[in-house]
Amino acid sequence: MKKAQQKDNPEGELEKLGKDIVSQIKAMKNPEITIPVRALSNVEFNKKTKTLQLGNKEGKRSFFNVGHTKKFLQTVEVASISKNLLNEGKHASLRDVFYMAKRTIPGTKVNVVDEQVESDAVVEDLELISDLSREQLNINANKNGSVAGRVVIEDKGDTIDWSKLGSGGWSVPSNVEDITFKKVNAKYVLYMEKAAVWENLHEHKFWDQHNCIILSSQGQTTRGIRRLLQRLYQEHNLPIYVLADYDCYGFYIYSVIKFGSINLAHISEKMAIPGVKFLGITSSDIEKYDLKKHFIKLQEHDLKRLKQISEYTWFRDNKHWQTEFKRMKEYGSKAEIQALSSRGISFMNNVYLPEKIKNKDFLD
Amino acid sequence: MKKAQQKDNPEGELEKLGKDIVSQIKAMKNPEITIPVRALSNVEFNKKTKTLQLGNKEGKRSFFNVGHTKKFLQTVEVASISKNLLNEGKHASLRDVFYMAKRTIPGTKVNVVDEQVESDAVVEDLELISDLSREQLNINANKNGSVAGRVVIEDKGDTIDWSKLGSGGWSVPSNVEDITFKKVNAKYVLYMEKAAVWENLHEHKFWDQHNCIILSSQGQTTRGIRRLLQRLYQEHNLPIYVLADYDCYGFYIYSVIKFGSINLAHISEKMAIPGVKFLGITSSDIEKYDLKKHFIKLQEHDLKRLKQISEYTWFRDNKHWQTEFKRMKEYGSKAEIQALSSRGISFMNNVYLPEKIKNKDFLD
Repeated sequence: MKKAQQKDNPEGELEKLGKDIVSQIKAMKNPEITIPVRALSNVEFNKKTKTLQLGNKEGKRSFFNVGHTKKFLQTVEVASISKNLLNEGKHASLRDVFYMAKRTIPGTKVNVVDEQVESDAVVEDLELISDLSREQLNINANKNGSVAGRVVIEDKGDTIDWSKLGSGGWSVPSNVEDITFKKVNAKYVLYMEKAAVWENLHEHKFWDQHNCIILSSQGQTTRGIRRLLQRLYQEHNLPIYVLADYDCYGFYIYSVIKFGSINLAHISEKMAIPGVKFLGITSSDIEKYDLKKHFIKLQEHDLKRLKQISEYTWFRDNKHWQTEFKRMKEYGSKAEIQALSSRGISFMNNVYLPEKIKNKDFLD
Repeated sequence: MKKAQQKDNPEGELEKLGKDIVSQIKAMKNPEITIPVRALSNVEFNKKTKTLQLGNKEGKRSFFNVGHTKKFLQTVEVASISKNLLNEGKHASLRDVFYMAKRTIPGTKVNVVDEQVESDAVVEDLELISDLSREQLNINANKNGSVAGRVVIEDKGDTIDWSKLGSGGWSVPSNVEDITFKKVNAKYVLYMEKAAVWENLHEHKFWDQHNCIILSSQGQTTRGIRRLLQRLYQEHNLPIYVLADYDCYGFYIYSVIKFGSINLAHISEKMAIPGVKFLGITSSDIEKYDLKKHFIKLQEHDLKRLKQISEYTWFRDNKHWQTEFKRMKEYGSKAEIQALSSRGISFMNNVYLPEKIKNKDFLD
């Protein structure tokens, strides 16, 4: 399969796609676009790079094929929308792109797209065809999350010091491709799934006391944050620790950051961070910090999800994680990060995190 | 009813509550706490202040009453947790407070609270009893949202310029009580329900071109953002315009910011902003900007919600809003802000918003 790389000329890539189609037409051929198959059957776990990747299966999308015509048109339409955005130096959300593509084909009653799922799928296809990420195509995912630490960046002509932004922190944009790191003074990055936990650490100036970066979103990690984590990991060799709940949802947040997701397997190399470690909450924390009284009973769907996750290729042969899954099943319970607050509002800052990090008590 | 005011000494208020209970006990009385009834039956729309408010009904919570004992204990427990937070100068989330209160009463198998709904309700009671907002009690709601504009604030010793924060903006904290405005150079505040719309406006430097502040959350407005809007409105006389979808959810976002919510009626005076105006999307925009082709059909639950909203006291006698509701019913359809992107990614910035604001084309 093709190697995903950061390309400097996305407009050129899209132009190449367009010119290729034009030259096929001029040669009186049935114009076609080649696309790797994006389905679970073509997703594999690369044990060497430790990321989810697409396999070698390819499909063709051709114009004179009743089953393909509309998809072909949609692909060219979205490529053209992206090209315009790049030309104008503007970005759009997936929802914007949907409305831009939702025009009626002149002389017909047919819309280029009718539902957002159609344009979303084509955007993902376009990532594959052009070997560019959605962010490089100027199509942004949702914005979310805050960050603080001894870091200075440059973005849109502004110099921004992440250590001097009061109680709020810097609001992480959906697209972090163009930010430049001017100074990074940190030993590691602590990423957490909950904004409330971030505010607690920030109020305690945890990042200042322990010389690290604290970063949060709310719930599932956005693409902007995954890319920010990856850039800090790759460009500044910073270890990344994930602080999440002791539940399947927390485990999955870690899994996506580390290995990539099935849905976005084609972009894993741009997004996955194999060196990420799970800091907690873990089953040994439950025992050590006496959190059993704050257990929440697993429901039917939790147990089903636990089984699924424990069978993922990348967890199947990992004995530490298998022990973790087994214990959770035995407990029949999950627990939240905030359960640590039962020991006092500063306990996580003054005891839990320093102890875990000092003892390198991670799950990998 | 009591006038809600910004109190400078929240610890003193809680101490007063505690001392009052102690003196009742010393006088061999059955200790009790008086609390206004917090139920729909005691919520009224004040036509003069144009906010939702609690009525005059009061209840008593006494210790030697089997039906009250636990609630009494919970109230004192949460007051004590809040007092500790204030003493330590730390804040906690509602979830943290739940875990802090969830301790077993010595010598029994009874927990002070078992579910978060119990501690949440007591926090709201405590707001009423102490006449302090949750934020003043150092108990924070969720953090969300971004802001940009020609504003300089001071927060936690940092000076923060909202016009120099790159593509991300300042991340709005859950609690904005302690920030100080050093410079506010803006003609109005544009508040929007969607982070993606904010990123679009920010990329176009809309706030710079039109000398305003742009502020967003994602979905329902957080308390931190409502208070920030209110402070800009009250302390700096800035008009607030709400940019939301043409649907019941968008209308309700506006309604809550302007009039307060039924749930938090006791705190309306600290949160509601009677001067807020609804900028769009409106039914006349649908006609004027030719958005019908981007209509989304109303479902059963939309129609039900539309009926509910149209019957709210504060909308019932407002003929502009009634026309709005009637038209939506006739259309049988709703539409999103992003539908404007069908006219190009800059259309909202260059045409829609400037026209609407210039013509004062608001719903009030």
